[in-house]
Amino acid sequence: MFLVEGNKIIKELPNSGYAINNVYSINPELLDISETNIHTILPAELKKISFLQNPKDSLALCEIPAETKVLETNIQIILDGLQDPGNLGTIIRLADWFGIEQIICSPDTVDLYNPKVIQATMGSFLRVNVVYLDIEAYLKKYQHPILGTDMAGETIYRTEFPEKFSIIFGNEGNGIRPSTESLINKMVTIPRFGKHQTTESLNVSMSAGIILGEIFSKS
Amino acid sequence: MFLVEGNKIIKELPNSGYAINNVYSINPELLDISETNIHTILPAELKKISFLQNPKDSLALCEIPAETKVLETNIQIILDGLQDPGNLGTIIRLADWFGIEQIICSPDTVDLYNPKVIQATMGSFLRVNVVYLDIEAYLKKYQHPILGTDMAGETIYRTEFPEKFSIIFGNEGNGIRPSTESLINKMVTIPRFGKHQTTESLNVSMSAGIILGEIFSKS
Repeated sequence: MFLVEGNKIIKELPNSGYAINNVYSINPELLDISETNIHTILPAELKKISFLQNPKDSLALCEIPAETKVLETNIQIILDGLQDPGNLGTIIRLADWFGIEQIICSPDTVDLYNPKVIQATMGSFLRVNVVYLDIEAYLKKYQHPILGTDMAGETIYRTEFPEKFSIIFGNEGNGIRPSTESLINKMVTIPRFGKHQTTESLNVSMSAGIILGEIFSKS
Repeated sequence: MFLVEGNKIIKELPNSGYAINNVYSINPELLDISETNIHTILPAELKKISFLQNPKDSLALCEIPAETKVLETNIQIILDGLQDPGNLGTIIRLADWFGIEQIICSPDTVDLYNPKVIQATMGSFLRVNVVYLDIEAYLKKYQHPILGTDMAGETIYRTEFPEKFSIIFGNEGNGIRPSTESLINKMVTIPRFGKHQTTESLNVSMSAGIILGEIFSKS
């Protein structure tokens, strides 16, 4: 099971592939979904079961699908050991915005069903296929170009992005692991325009946003 | 006064325009700065005075400059009522990455010296001039194009960005206020490529990253 909080996202659940187990709401009339298992609870009870500092109106317990399929997509994101729930949630939200249908995660990437990830997606987890698998084995069989992101690649502004490819983002501290890196055809980088050497490199989800923005500028 | 936490940023302070008042450190040898007011404290004491969940080695009390000057810059960011400390910090970090020297904030924008803002900048506040002023009065006298960002402007992929301009980002919930909007020459927008109407619009700092990425792709 996993938790979904907030009426806005819960209302989208019946049209998604996810099965709702139970809904707990302080105001079921506002939910407007035909779900038999809706329980009216008190605000104090919601506060106890919610993972949010400021709980919303309702909370749904949903079933984690037994299996997830790998889709054939044009552009897909691969995450190699991403650890921060906010980063995964933000990247799922970005994928949804840009119409990227699939994100493939290494098994050690933070879990999609972590409540912080689900919340950070703002409902986008309903529209992006997120799969966990052995990315090394997967990439060895993958037939299209594999791009990676690091600090020393070709500038994204000069890269010609193919029609069909995978783009890999690595762990927040360590980047892409060497065994994955050996399968990459080209590394790409966001050039730094500021002149200060002490400037920190951009956060991985921000980098993903800027790189996706550039990929789609050419589509 | 304001707080700066972490050796990495504190070490940069002596070369910045900021005056250090006192430094409190559990390990002053690692600091490697010639500052007379360094006090050795215990980890438990640091935990009490730190704003971080996991305090770093040191904490510096710095003086807020008495006044800030408005610079003449080519590209500058204007923030109209931004409320979230993380968003302001992230936008300062982005400005530093792209070499944007100045951010002008409406007086009701979250304070630069809020500890969460300072921390989110990862030291970039040392390299970007952040000024608070009456943006309406300022923009009325401003001689260059004024761009704004909203959900219904020209796609950024077709915009010709001038050499010298200001770009405005608005409040997280309400966007740019009408009195500011009336001074804007052109609205720009990140087009959504995903087909789902329910997709949430992107967060303001992520939008800023994608739009800056596009502006600098053309420079």
